[in-house]
Formats: sequence, structure tokens, C-alpha cells
Amino acid sequence: MITQAYTDLCSMKREAAMLSSVAYLLSWDQETYMPAGGTAARAEQSAILAGLVHDRQTSERLGELITACEQDKAVQDDADAAANVREMRRDYDRETKLPKELVTELANVGARAQDAWKDARKNNDFKAFQPWLEKMVTLTRRKAECYGAPAGGELYDALLDEYEPDARASEIEAVFTPLQDRLSGLVAELLDNGTPPETGPRKVHVPEAAQHAMGLRVIEQMGFDLSRGRLDVTTHPFCEGLAPGDTRLTTRYDEDYFMGALYGTMHEAGHGLYEQGLPKQDADGEPSAIYGTPLSEARSLGIHESQSRGWENFVGRGRAFWEWAKPVADGYFGGDFTKFSAEDVFRASNLVERSFIRVEADEATYNLHVMLRFALERAMIAGDVAIKDIPGEWNERFERMLGVKVPDDARGCLQDVHWSFGLIGYFPTYTLGNLYAAQFFEAIREKTPDLDDRIASGDMSPVLDWSREHIHRLGRRYSAAEICEKATGKPLGPDPLMRHLEGKLRPVYGL
Amino acid sequence: MITQAYTDLCSMKREAAMLSSVAYLLSWDQETYMPAGGTAARAEQSAILAGLVHDRQTSERLGELITACEQDKAVQDDADAAANVREMRRDYDRETKLPKELVTELANVGARAQDAWKDARKNNDFKAFQPWLEKMVTLTRRKAECYGAPAGGELYDALLDEYEPDARASEIEAVFTPLQDRLSGLVAELLDNGTPPETGPRKVHVPEAAQHAMGLRVIEQMGFDLSRGRLDVTTHPFCEGLAPGDTRLTTRYDEDYFMGALYGTMHEAGHGLYEQGLPKQDADGEPSAIYGTPLSEARSLGIHESQSRGWENFVGRGRAFWEWAKPVADGYFGGDFTKFSAEDVFRASNLVERSFIRVEADEATYNLHVMLRFALERAMIAGDVAIKDIPGEWNERFERMLGVKVPDDARGCLQDVHWSFGLIGYFPTYTLGNLYAAQFFEAIREKTPDLDDRIASGDMSPVLDWSREHIHRLGRRYSAAEICEKATGKPLGPDPLMRHLEGKLRPVYGL
Repeated sequence: MITQAYTDLCSMKREAAMLSSVAYLLSWDQETYMPAGGTAARAEQSAILAGLVHDRQTSERLGELITACEQDKAVQDDADAAANVREMRRDYDRETKLPKELVTELANVGARAQDAWKDARKNNDFKAFQPWLEKMVTLTRRKAECYGAPAGGELYDALLDEYEPDARASEIEAVFTPLQDRLSGLVAELLDNGTPPETGPRKVHVPEAAQHAMGLRVIEQMGFDLSRGRLDVTTHPFCEGLAPGDTRLTTRYDEDYFMGALYGTMHEAGHGLYEQGLPKQDADGEPSAIYGTPLSEARSLGIHESQSRGWENFVGRGRAFWEWAKPVADGYFGGDFTKFSAEDVFRASNLVERSFIRVEADEATYNLHVMLRFALERAMIAGDVAIKDIPGEWNERFERMLGVKVPDDARGCLQDVHWSFGLIGYFPTYTLGNLYAAQFFEAIREKTPDLDDRIASGDMSPVLDWSREHIHRLGRRYSAAEICEKATGKPLGPDPLMRHLEGKLRPVYGL
Repeated sequence: MITQAYTDLCSMKREAAMLSSVAYLLSWDQETYMPAGGTAARAEQSAILAGLVHDRQTSERLGELITACEQDKAVQDDADAAANVREMRRDYDRETKLPKELVTELANVGARAQDAWKDARKNNDFKAFQPWLEKMVTLTRRKAECYGAPAGGELYDALLDEYEPDARASEIEAVFTPLQDRLSGLVAELLDNGTPPETGPRKVHVPEAAQHAMGLRVIEQMGFDLSRGRLDVTTHPFCEGLAPGDTRLTTRYDEDYFMGALYGTMHEAGHGLYEQGLPKQDADGEPSAIYGTPLSEARSLGIHESQSRGWENFVGRGRAFWEWAKPVADGYFGGDFTKFSAEDVFRASNLVERSFIRVEADEATYNLHVMLRFALERAMIAGDVAIKDIPGEWNERFERMLGVKVPDDARGCLQDVHWSFGLIGYFPTYTLGNLYAAQFFEAIREKTPDLDDRIASGDMSPVLDWSREHIHRLGRRYSAAEICEKATGKPLGPDPLMRHLEGKLRPVYGL
């Protein structure tokens, strides 16, 4: 059944992925441990690796093998193999549209721009970052032009497609616009008419070491395998599915706001569980034969975010979670924290605020932060807003949407790392992830009606098992829309998210 | 003057080095942060990178450019360029003798063997490591056979040549044998007739964090630039000159023996200063045009060790150092440590012991540890000792040489990482380094007669400046023998080391 062409194809993809994984290490290391003096060399290293990976991903031989497999009845009769080849064709056609020079330049400039962003954010100095952002937007727009806008779509769609295959900005806008109204309405209702929870538990001082120990404890409880992963400290938290058996999470600690790190860590561990659940490794620890092929890869960023946002919010900001976690945290945090009840901490973790930092935002306002970025980056690519005007545009839109004035660019347009890497078209997947997560958790609850009791007892397996079965093990076998339909019986919609938010937040606010 | 061929040649070497530097990151990461689950993938990544580097270092085009430069009068009239080409020829002729399969297999098996060694050492289980060591010795012997024994030399010389160009085992033996007698004599004299120093200062309990802070303070004082380097924790301390502007040191902490980490850190920082002093980077932080060519590379491991052993012993175990360092350490260590005088700590740091761990050995016995390894690995390559017999051979030779029984393999033949990587032919360079260091420090003292006063006041610059001028900036411009002659006016000899040891240790032992 499995022909030589298919075996050869998988093997070529596997070697290309192995090289890619080295590039991931370069990037992880730059964000965690690399000394500042290494920046220039790192940019060159990244560019060389990007070029080598591009050569492999676009080689003529790879194209011939894909074509051979498309015409091979044995491959096409095998649903998994056929899906794998379909996705490889998609990747190949995209990647071959990019000239190698552009790929290496993006890697080189991106590595330098990322360091410039770090300094600019620390010094609250947009002007210092502006020339780098201009370079990255220019290069990214050139990349979009190479891909070309899809029929009936816009240039931005070509970028979006990389993170959320087949998504269209206009369709996302059609979902986001009514959702924005409903979310703004809910936020106004809560803040204008409700009684906010006591914020005491949010403000307890917790030393970094205690937070780190608690973070490790929680992610192990979630099922994250620390013998096949780790947790480090960075400026901007992320998860890197670096290689088979090697998934790396990062977080950052604020000793006067432990929830920032805790929820950040749970979020990244949600991503990490997806990476650990993909079939990248055999039982004996060796990289699998399909490692590097689409069957071993995450479906889309929207689906990826459904995993991270799911654990962070649908588990971590739930009452049941704190019933388990409160006594555990008492052991690590001690002191003032022990004076609060699980219910106090649960309620405090659901404080709704018109705040500035997306990654620390509550569930109700979070999507508004995302919508701002989506609108702004779409305008950047369309050329409707100049880079020098970003801070002004950001601040004006932010105030219009959230009703508060941005105090400085560090808490405004400089807060996220994404644009410095050229990750444009990425932000809307966060809200797609929230929508998917809400719908997935309704399905999980349906399958496990005593979910809250299980979580309260520390048993997180119903969430992980469901996710492994319906999402992780499948890789890119199905489209995101198909995954959603198969797993929940319905296409993606806004109602589960609104039901979740209203059902949880109104009672917290005494409404 | 500089022709296109030479520019192209340097540029090819530079790109190959940039790829090599990525392989160094793979190795550094494996030793520091990689989760155990990533081992199999890391082995494949390392093998791929080793293959890519080998392809570049042995490409036909590179060979043509070297030949062109050898025949180019303009290049040959430029002493630096001519030396650079001479060394490139040497590397090219060596590297092209190795088949790519062997290079990638060494990297693949080496990465796995290294992890097996880590576990075996932890569990004191030689049997578990034996098959890996057998594989690595077989592969390393095959490598030596590809290089071929030099005329009149032995197979082991072909390996030695990689670390100490043009050295011969027979010549090293001729130096080591009388040196061993003189050292054994000194050790016996001290331990049989002398009064050992008080060991109290060695045994003070110092928390890891305080040791780490002190370590950083000391290496900054030495001149190590922490914006272009870092210090981490590993099983086996090492220094990796990873890339331009990125030199990484590692150490390990024992809270009941701070001198282990302190001297280990100074040792690695000595290596690190050499790496930072090589012309790998321009003033603006960009990798230099000669990065990756021999002019930017360390001369030999013997010279490298002269830098690490020099800082560790000729500075760090000196009275003047502790006059400066004692009050500094008081600030970090506090408690019991402050009760001792600088003289107490100086004397305690020169305790001579018949101990088991090479990297923690005193200066007098250290070279005996090295001589044991040299004899044993030379026998391994000659096929005169089977791998299964290594523990027995080690223990017997150790007892004969140092008069004490090795308690277990973790403190015996499993203590060093080197053989697991296939680093055979490396050990003798440690003792060569001690010999060079002693001779270099006599020259430094001659140039700076008030060296002790300078060091006691915290001014380490006479050591660093001299090393920068006579060693670091030169790369591989001259041979090790030429460096020694030019810098000290004499060929390498054993007398400076014996003068140093006898001059320091006899008074410490009241003789």
C-alpha cells in the first residue's frame, strides 16, 4: 500500500523538519539565554538555516515526489496518506512562491528586529523600533505579494493563510464585528451595573521561586510531560514545539501579580500539550517516520490557541480548578495567600478590567485587544496606515474601544513581540481560538457531565483525553472547520463563547 | 593586495563556521537545558549539521580556492594571508580524508553516548556506558585510520594532531615521564614531610546563589565580558566559544565545597577570555570578515589550557588574588567564611591531596591525573586494552600512581565527559597547558614586576593585556611552539612549572 515515492517524500520532509527544529532552537535560545553580544551572529545563523530549510522545502525532487504521490492510486486510496500529500502540496505551492533571498532576509532582519523590539519595549522608545518595524512590514508585504491575494480576497489574506489556512479577513471581520458589540455590551454591563470581586488575592506578594514551583506543579497536573519539555523565563511568553520529545514553554514573573505568570504558564502549557500530543515521536523516543509531515503538525493557530486559551480560561479561571489548586498553592505561596478561600481566588481571577496588556487581560476584554491588532495590521498591509503613525492610531483606537487612555507605548503598541518577527496575520487566531475553545468545552462537558468534580479533585484527564482524541493525534488530517464539525457536531459560532462568559461573569459580578 | 580568490575563500570559511556555530549551540543546549526526551532528535540534528559543515569544509570549490591562493603571489606576500591559507590547507587536507558517513555517525552516536554517560556517571554504572564507549572508540579509531598515522608516528598521533597540531605521543611521553617523577617526588615530599594547611576555609557552607554571584564577580574582574557571554550550570564544566559575541561558560556547584565551582569558573573564564580575544567580531558587533578562518581561531588546546589553567592556578590560587578576593567573597558568602584571613584561604586553596576528581585536583597532583588518561587512551587506540577492562586498568594505574584506591567508577573512569564525545587525544593538552602557563607567567612577571600588588588591588589587566597581545589576537598565525618562543624567548620546558609549584607549595607546607 505504501509506495516508495511516499516513503521517500516523508523522509525528505522529515529531514527538512529536523533542520527547521534547529532554527527553532536558535530562536528559543535568542529569547531565553543568548547574550546580547550574540545578536549579529544569531541573525546570520538564522538566515543560513532559513535558506537551507527553504532549499529543502522547495526542491525539485520534493515537487516530483508530491506529484508522483498525487498520481499514485495506492497513496490516494489511503486516507491518511492522501491527506498528508494534499497538505504537502499546499505547503510546497506556497513555499515555492518565495525567493530564497526573501526568506533569508526575513530571518536575518527578524532576528535583529526582535532584539531592537526588546530594547525599545524596555525603554518605552517606539522611535528606536520604528525603522525595524518598517523593514519588517515591507518584507512581510513583499512576502504577501509573492503568495498573492486569493481570488476575491485581499493581500492580508495571503498572510493570514499561513496561520489559519483558507481564512479570509472579510469573513473574520464578519464574525468579529457583531462579537465586538456583544463583548463591549457585556463589559459595560459588568463594569457599570455589577459589583467587582475583591481583588485581594490578585495582589499577594509571591516570590518568583514559589511561583515557578507552583507553575511546574500545575502543568504537570495538566499532563505536561516535563521529561519531554521545560519551562524558562522570557520577555514575552511563548511555547516552542522544538523537536520530537522537546517542547519548551516560557513565562515571566511579577512577584506582585502571580496570576500573570500562572495563567501565562497554563496558556503555554496548553500549547505544549498539543505539541506533545502530535505524533512526532515513537514510543521508544525516536522521532517518528511521519515527523515533519503534515500529519505530525498542528492544524492551525486558531486550533492551537483553542488549546492554550482552553486550559487558561475554561480550566484555570474556573471555580473547580481553584478548589483543587488553592490548597496546593497554599503550600507554595504560604503567608497572606492562605487567608483567602478558593472561592475568593476564583472570583478574583475573573476580574474584568479596561487594562492595557493583552496577555494579562481578562476573558471579556481580551478579544477587544485582539480586534484592535487585527484592524491595525490589516490597515498596515493595505498601506492605509504609516508605521510612524502606529502609536497614535493604536492609542486612539484603544481609547475608543476600551474607554481608557494608553499611558505609554510599552503598554501600547510595543507590548507584543509578533510584529518584530513579521508575524502579521497571526493575531486574529487568538480570538478564533477562544471561539473554538468555548465550543470544544461544551462538547467536553457533554461527554463528561461531572467535569467540575473531576477537575476539583485534580483529575484533568477528561480535558486532555478529549483533546488528544479529537485534535492532537490528527495533526493536519482535517481542516480546522472539519475538526470543529467532527468534534462538536456544529460549525464554529459565537454563541458558546458568549454563553461561557455571561454564565461565569454575571454571577461573579452579582448580576 | 587582497585578491578575489582570498576574499571568496574567507567568505566560504566564514559561512561554514556560522553553520558550525549552530552545531555548537546544539551541543551547549544538550549539556545545559535540553530535556532528556529530546536526546534522539538532538542526535539527528547534530548529525545533519555535522554533515552540512563537512560538505562545506571539503567542497571542491574550497579546495580550488585554497590552491589558487597558494599560487597567488599577492596572497603569499602578505604574511597574515599566507599563514591563513597555510592553516586552511592543513584543515582541508585533514577534513577531506574523512567520509561524510563517518562524520555524521560520530555526531549521532556521540550525542547519544553523551547522554548515556551522564546517566552512567550518576548511577555509577560503567556497564551501562560500556557499549557506548566501545562504539565511540571504534568510530574514533576509524577516524584516526582515515587521517593515518604520521611518518614515524603512531595511530594515536593522528588524533592528537587535531587538538595539538604536530604533537607526537612519543615526544609527549618523553616530557611526561621525567615530569611525573619530579611531581611524584614533590607530592611525596609535601605529604610525608610537610605540614598541610588548615582546611577550614575549604569546608565553609556557601549557598549556590552566593557562589554564583561571586563567580560572576570574579570573572568580570578578570575581564570576561558578560554582555558577550554567560555562565550556566552543567554536569561537566566547559567553555564554548559559540559564535562571535557569544562565549558560554558552565560550572557546577557544591554548597559544601565552594572552591570547586570558583576555580572551575575561573578556569572556564580563562578559556572564555581567549575566545573573546580572538578576532571573531568587529567593533560594531558584526562577525568579522575573517571569522571562521584560522586567523580567528584558537591555536591549539595546549595554548587554550594555558589560558584556563593560568587564570585558575597562577592567578586564582595565588596569595595576591585572595588579598583582593577575600573581602569581596566575605560580602557574598558572609557567615563562617569571614572568620578566616586571606592568608588562610590562600593556603587552603593549595592543599595537596591524593584525591579522585581531576577537575578538582590540586596543582601538584593534577598532572598525574592527566598522565593516567594519556597512557590509558593511547593504549585504547593501540588496541592494547579492551573497553571492558578500562575500570580495572584505571583503578590499578591510579593506585600505583597516587597511592589510593578508587572507591567507584563515578570517581574513577566515568568522571570525565571527553571519551563519550570521542575526544581522545585531548587529555595531554591539559598538562601542556600547565607547562605553557608556567612559562607565560614568568614572562608576565618579568614585564610587570609588581604583578602581585596589581592583582592584590584587583587589577588583573597585566595578565589579560599580555595574553591579548602575545596569544589571543594572533589566532593560528603562528604554531604553538612559535608562540611560546616569541612570547617567552625560550622553547617550552618543564622548569617554570616545577619552579612555580615548588616555590609556592613548599612554604605552604612549612618546608
